[in-house]
Amino acid sequence: MHTFNEFVKIFAERFAIDHFPKHPSTLYEPGDYFLSLGGKRIRPVICLMGNELFDEINPDTYHVAFAIELFHNFSLIHDDIMDAASLRRGMETVHKKYGSNTALLSGDVMLIRSYDYINKINVQYLPRILSLFNKTAREVCEGQQLDMDFEKQEVVLMDDYINMISLKTSVLLAASLEMGAILGGASEHNCRHIYEFGKSLGIAFQIQDDYLDAFGDPEKFGKDVGGDIRQNKKTFLMLHTLASASDDQKKELNELIKTNPSDKVEKVLSIYKACNVDEWANQLKEKYYQKALHHLEEIAVLSIRKKPLIELAAFLIQRDY
Amino acid sequence: MHTFNEFVKIFAERFAIDHFPKHPSTLYEPGDYFLSLGGKRIRPVICLMGNELFDEINPDTYHVAFAIELFHNFSLIHDDIMDAASLRRGMETVHKKYGSNTALLSGDVMLIRSYDYINKINVQYLPRILSLFNKTAREVCEGQQLDMDFEKQEVVLMDDYINMISLKTSVLLAASLEMGAILGGASEHNCRHIYEFGKSLGIAFQIQDDYLDAFGDPEKFGKDVGGDIRQNKKTFLMLHTLASASDDQKKELNELIKTNPSDKVEKVLSIYKACNVDEWANQLKEKYYQKALHHLEEIAVLSIRKKPLIELAAFLIQRDY
Repeated sequence: MHTFNEFVKIFAERFAIDHFPKHPSTLYEPGDYFLSLGGKRIRPVICLMGNELFDEINPDTYHVAFAIELFHNFSLIHDDIMDAASLRRGMETVHKKYGSNTALLSGDVMLIRSYDYINKINVQYLPRILSLFNKTAREVCEGQQLDMDFEKQEVVLMDDYINMISLKTSVLLAASLEMGAILGGASEHNCRHIYEFGKSLGIAFQIQDDYLDAFGDPEKFGKDVGGDIRQNKKTFLMLHTLASASDDQKKELNELIKTNPSDKVEKVLSIYKACNVDEWANQLKEKYYQKALHHLEEIAVLSIRKKPLIELAAFLIQRDY
Repeated sequence: MHTFNEFVKIFAERFAIDHFPKHPSTLYEPGDYFLSLGGKRIRPVICLMGNELFDEINPDTYHVAFAIELFHNFSLIHDDIMDAASLRRGMETVHKKYGSNTALLSGDVMLIRSYDYINKINVQYLPRILSLFNKTAREVCEGQQLDMDFEKQEVVLMDDYINMISLKTSVLLAASLEMGAILGGASEHNCRHIYEFGKSLGIAFQIQDDYLDAFGDPEKFGKDVGGDIRQNKKTFLMLHTLASASDDQKKELNELIKTNPSDKVEKVLSIYKACNVDEWANQLKEKYYQKALHHLEEIAVLSIRKKPLIELAAFLIQRDY
């Protein structure tokens, strides 16, 4: 069996091929550029891990892993257009570098290419994989739409926010694991639990991401702390504070959001702390983390095969194990 | 067997269902809106005709026909964003009505939905249909990119233009016919010829469209004559004139393109006529029309089964038959 890091290396080597024709370069070069920006390739790697949980690697898993990574990059290219983001992984986004029209079309053709990889697998699993892949792709679009909708809403309920996060980020992690499991011949029961493992882990990870953006050690976190606060982003922390703070605190918070003073981050953080939102967030993260582990326990394979996924979960959720 | 018009009616009735979930309506309502604008549904209908050329209708053909129509509408929604078009079939385009971000995402989810319909067919034909569908989808994107590239180029060679038109419009007609044929159990030989029939017919149709925009009877044509000239669009007529005109005519033409005088349409048309571009276009259209018919002749089925397609071709190319 392989650890997460071993699979990261194996996948990176296999993925370093031409995914597009050469011509017209105006259409395909932007896609190559974006893929060259790299990333951890978490989703295809956990697809491989979901496969190896049940058996020796089925070579078809690489085709599906390629499709997943292309789909993910397609969604980032289009999200960057919608968010008018200039930078991705420290480099220019596609629409910034090549223009919006080309970014739109390069994204489209990347999505289409992902279905070519799906179509390479043994026909035995094709309808089931295609069905899950499509359902997930649709949900990711729904998540992005809800995210844009929520930006315009004053009040967002926590359950709706969790649903949005789940669609926007967790379902692709969950489906990546399940597609690996399907290709490993896993039973319906096992498929269901590996999916739920991924979904809960994704939510725990997002809570942690929100937490670290507010309370993280800047050196370890690798990003500016307080970015979400500066951008008035709706996060787990902000929504919980708006729902649980006193009237005075809410008033102050809404004032800070409106007026954007230079000491906004500091002041919002002190309200967060007064509301114990850091403790609340850690508890919520722990709840989803434990939920994830519970689903992993339910999977009927030898315990030893679960070790890489347990280690990965602990690593992602930054716990000592 | 059915005529084109009979299939238009049958398809319209079948297609009038909900293609999307209700929620989130911000994502799916724009897609419903765009589909409600209607259209002749030529592509799915010729898919049905391609199927019936070989046998009784295979019910799976309706799934593929749905996928084709959704794909076509996805491409129109995204093209309208790229072309900054305000109107489609006399109504507001999706990005005009709902904003670019929602139009982008509604297009994405419509493309994804088309693969759900593909996935409904019998697994026996799934890999082959998916492969042709994907190849065609990729080519349509390539055609759109080349079209955008050509707008920025001063000189476009006729062969390159025909290649672009072929990718942007003809391959989807061709593939629609071939997917129908595949589901009708057609041989490789017959599949190849039905594809080429559709491809040549598509080019003939585009030549005619360019011709009618310049020389058509406004009442019969249903659009303003001279629209392409006013917008400085590169068309078959313009490219041929730029390639075959005298130096003086070229100079005048380039001046008209640059200065956009109020009598531009009139003046460009008189250069077109002086260069006999109308006659040339009719000959070129006839060449592709005959090529299409030749491929239809090569298809090994009873002649009587070809009648609806022969009638359709004659109707599309506006010939008496």
